Amino acid sequence: MRLNGQTIRSIRRPPGARHVTIIDQTRLPFAFGTADLTDANAAARAIRDMLVRGAPLIGTTAAYGLAMALDADPSDSALADARALLAATRPTAINLAWALDRIVATVAGLPPAERAGAAFAEADAIAEEDVAINAAIGRHGLALIERLHRRHGRLVNILTHCNAGALAAVDLGTALAPVYAAQDAGIPVHVFVDETRPRNQGASLTAFELVSAGIPHTVIPDNTGGHLMQHGMVDLCIVGTDRVAANGDVANKIGTYLKALAARDNRVPFYVALPSPTLDPAIADGVRDIPIEQRGAAEVTHMTGRTAYGRIETVRIVPDGSPVANYGFDVTPARLVTGLITERGVIAANRMAIAAAFPDRFVRAA
Amino acid sequence: MRLNGQTIRSIRRPPGARHVTIIDQTRLPFAFGTADLTDANAAARAIRDMLVRGAPLIGTTAAYGLAMALDADPSDSALADARALLAATRPTAINLAWALDRIVATVAGLPPAERAGAAFAEADAIAEEDVAINAAIGRHGLALIERLHRRHGRLVNILTHCNAGALAAVDLGTALAPVYAAQDAGIPVHVFVDETRPRNQGASLTAFELVSAGIPHTVIPDNTGGHLMQHGMVDLCIVGTDRVAANGDVANKIGTYLKALAARDNRVPFYVALPSPTLDPAIADGVRDIPIEQRGAAEVTHMTGRTAYGRIETVRIVPDGSPVANYGFDVTPARLVTGLITERGVIAANRMAIAAAFPDRFVRAA
Repeated sequence: MRLNGQTIRSIRRPPGARHVTIIDQTRLPFAFGTADLTDANAAARAIRDMLVRGAPLIGTTAAYGLAMALDADPSDSALADARALLAATRPTAINLAWALDRIVATVAGLPPAERAGAAFAEADAIAEEDVAINAAIGRHGLALIERLHRRHGRLVNILTHCNAGALAAVDLGTALAPVYAAQDAGIPVHVFVDETRPRNQGASLTAFELVSAGIPHTVIPDNTGGHLMQHGMVDLCIVGTDRVAANGDVANKIGTYLKALAARDNRVPFYVALPSPTLDPAIADGVRDIPIEQRGAAEVTHMTGRTAYGRIETVRIVPDGSPVANYGFDVTPARLVTGLITERGVIAANRMAIAAAFPDRFVRAA
Repeated sequence: MRLNGQTIRSIRRPPGARHVTIIDQTRLPFAFGTADLTDANAAARAIRDMLVRGAPLIGTTAAYGLAMALDADPSDSALADARALLAATRPTAINLAWALDRIVATVAGLPPAERAGAAFAEADAIAEEDVAINAAIGRHGLALIERLHRRHGRLVNILTHCNAGALAAVDLGTALAPVYAAQDAGIPVHVFVDETRPRNQGASLTAFELVSAGIPHTVIPDNTGGHLMQHGMVDLCIVGTDRVAANGDVANKIGTYLKALAARDNRVPFYVALPSPTLDPAIADGVRDIPIEQRGAAEVTHMTGRTAYGRIETVRIVPDGSPVANYGFDVTPARLVTGLITERGVIAANRMAIAAAFPDRFVRAA
């Protein structure tokens, strides 16, 4: 992410190190701090407790976690245990399984002594590829923004949900990569940032990223997007995703589906930005079959923020005696998606277009 | 509202009193307290600062406010000043202007000495009519719930947004009146309560009402309803409204439109409950012309709740440097509304049906 004119990656392995350093996202937006993850357990905890989150970043963190496990014990059984531990941390983002599978495939034929080194190298490759993929997504998304800028002759208003920015990936992000590309290209943009209850990733992470990068934006309650679209205040929606099914259905943060409905009702283009590791060709029907994580009640009943005296405090906002439900994701049917912004270009959200653009991914899963 | 087996009205005039007692809704859900409003300024402040809110309750409070103004000074100029003061408190709920007009019409021909008494009597009548209207809405809505109960042979899941319950009216409420009627009739219901950011009227008021009344419910983030409807977990949506245009377009708390879209996409019936004072025949096209209140940034940037130590604390949840937008309402197009639950029955959300059911309201405005 861009901070005080510098670029800081959400996860990085210091040269030669056997650990990784992450931005601790649970402390944002009021404190910026990093944490070192020095073994697979720490990586699993960081994913489960959401010190890191966002599908691409979850995948990369898991890959490093497996490398650290192999560094401690390169045996097949330790590999299997660590894989199971890391795979169980979060259910919805398919990048997790994809990255773990990639490390396992890399080390499978190697003698134990070579495994950790090869795994770290492969995790490094996953991280570098993530940045390159996101840069390509940024270029393809920029073309959409440029077209709207030319058509309207004014700044382009983009609505996003949750955080699919630099903090959701190694750098740049998916949905925000085109926004950063627009900033670099001098195309004026303004981002409506959905607060994204219950964890407020929009208000706490996306807003923090955009403040840090100096990109004009407005934080809005999740309820607001429909009204804005109804009154012509949004030119384009771009969101990220945790898993895209073979039919183009898109799992993303709970509430994405509602924005896609509003976009359709008001003829606002609704794009989903994704790196190809987020494709899951094994799921034929996303609405029916993508597993939806249910999370703890406290995320809904309590809210954390900064008091007037600068202390970080957590307050209860739901009455005692009221049960809550906390679904982490929903699935937007492909019919509501204008297009998928991938590293290979913008494609239609349907089986044929996805398979044509990513035959390699489909062959592997078939 | 129902509390510990008793019924407490959101606003009441003690017998013979020249003031009113309200439930101070800004203290809910963690403290229950009342406040006395003893003059028009106090009534205006209570509406503006949302000690009272909800279209029917705003109207009733304004009526009493005008009566108290006339009690202090029954002159025409004092009447005009108080009317202007009260009318300027909130822009979207049409019940406000309706109630003020009714008091003005009542006292118009009277000698000054008789005005305050007549105004208090008329405000009392408005309050009593509100309860009677809501009881009728409850009966008509109950028929819809009973039908679903018979069809499915199980409890009926109802989703509501914001608070259109007893706390939004003198008693019973509009959207929740059918829920209370179902409780009284022994029909099993369960209510999904949208949190309703940014002011959390669902999590703080509707949840409090339902806990107090012993009605099963689940508080959900505003983002969740689409997912629930997509997976068959909602049988029926019922919401309130702050103003219904002549064409059936419905202004209600921001985010209502998104739920109506999700209901349509999943064939879930979407009903709007309203007392006839919420009709505004003077507005031909609601989406285009109903004024939408924009409120202060602090409602979005800050959140108030109870700390682990029982103290009520306000915390900031949006980074410094991030602007916010805070639209209080949106307008749901009539095409998305299955029906309007009124005191005269369930009617279609279109000009002809509304004019046929309420010719008296249309004649007055024409």
